[in-house]
Amino acid sequence: MNQDELKQQVGQEAVNYIHDDMIVGLGTGTTVHCLVDALGKKMQAGEITDITCVTTSNRTTRQAESLGIPVKAIDDVDHIDLTIDGADEVSADFQGIKGGGGALLWEKIVSYASNRVMWIVDESKMVDNLGKFPLPVEVTPYGSHHLFRRLARKGYRPTWRMNADNSDLFRTHQRNFIIDLHLEQIIDPFKLHKELIDLAGLIEDGLFLDQVNDVLVGTQDGPKLLHARP
Amino acid sequence: MNQDELKQQVGQEAVNYIHDDMIVGLGTGTTVHCLVDALGKKMQAGEITDITCVTTSNRTTRQAESLGIPVKAIDDVDHIDLTIDGADEVSADFQGIKGGGGALLWEKIVSYASNRVMWIVDESKMVDNLGKFPLPVEVTPYGSHHLFRRLARKGYRPTWRMNADNSDLFRTHQRNFIIDLHLEQIIDPFKLHKELIDLAGLIEDGLFLDQVNDVLVGTQDGPKLLHARP
Repeated sequence: MNQDELKQQVGQEAVNYIHDDMIVGLGTGTTVHCLVDALGKKMQAGEITDITCVTTSNRTTRQAESLGIPVKAIDDVDHIDLTIDGADEVSADFQGIKGGGGALLWEKIVSYASNRVMWIVDESKMVDNLGKFPLPVEVTPYGSHHLFRRLARKGYRPTWRMNADNSDLFRTHQRNFIIDLHLEQIIDPFKLHKELIDLAGLIEDGLFLDQVNDVLVGTQDGPKLLHARP
Repeated sequence: MNQDELKQQVGQEAVNYIHDDMIVGLGTGTTVHCLVDALGKKMQAGEITDITCVTTSNRTTRQAESLGIPVKAIDDVDHIDLTIDGADEVSADFQGIKGGGGALLWEKIVSYASNRVMWIVDESKMVDNLGKFPLPVEVTPYGSHHLFRRLARKGYRPTWRMNADNSDLFRTHQRNFIIDLHLEQIIDPFKLHKELIDLAGLIEDGLFLDQVNDVLVGTQDGPKLLHARP
């Protein structure tokens, strides 16, 4: 199976963790796209009839609504039972980098508000240590060039995230910028997160630490469920 | 002298720390308003002819420009020599609470980008310990009701900041909300800052720690300069 087929595989498997009466958080990205498709089919087949979803991006909202999946605003639900989201890298001790799609802030907010979190990834995302994947940070535009230079001075090799046609800086849902840090290796993600999050103007980083309960991995031998933490 | 006269006093005194060829950060608030007025007069009198200012709010930009003070965007200067700003509370060890006016994010970004920082306050702002003044935190609207409940569960007595005519939630320059925490006493501001800043959706708090170099205090005996840190 190629990577797309592995994504299909876990997306279709993950839908089995969604049941009636649940409030479900839906992530963002290509693997979650497969999940939302599978969820839509299950609802159209009448196998799931009564769920509420919240999403982590307008893209996912549009896809879900087009399939008849009921979506509420996050502030209109009082809790989230389970969030299923993708990840860009998952380390051996189940820490993650997310935000390749630029939705890290909403993804982190939904993750924090969830009773349980599952990441669905193809096996290429499982790594020994984080950092090969560029670490995204969301920054407020005001003063962002000072912040960029500070990140460069720290040796974090920042680049500006560009929009799809490369014509301008990428903007998040909050109209903020994304800076990607090309670190190659993150020795201590907790220490790095504390340092980054304390920088004025840096709103959120893509390190998702101690956030995930289960990781569903698409492999050549079929989907594999890994228990990260209770 | 009443409080307004003390603010006038330090505002007029603080202008003496601004010289030609400096890039100056101008804060926000009633005391800084007095400083900007005094700076405008000094420029009109030809005593200062060549400075560049960056501001921490659109209010201050409007006031400065109306007085002929040259204002640049923060990302159009490569450093700031000195920022002069107000504060809502300054503790005996020179930690501060800022953000009563809602400009805490820009104020903190400008503060971090400055070589030196001076706070100008009337003597009522000098306290033994921080916390009588409600601590503002800026939060992204998405998921903010979950964050509000989390802050309430922690016992931080949050309230939503309202706009001037109390008709709706206050919005910052970034269209975010402000939540005020009624703590009464902050035992360990560093620990509290670390805890708050790590909450997903909480963009910045009003604790300005190890940020100020000098505090100029308006007292009945005249302005008093306190050296906080080198």
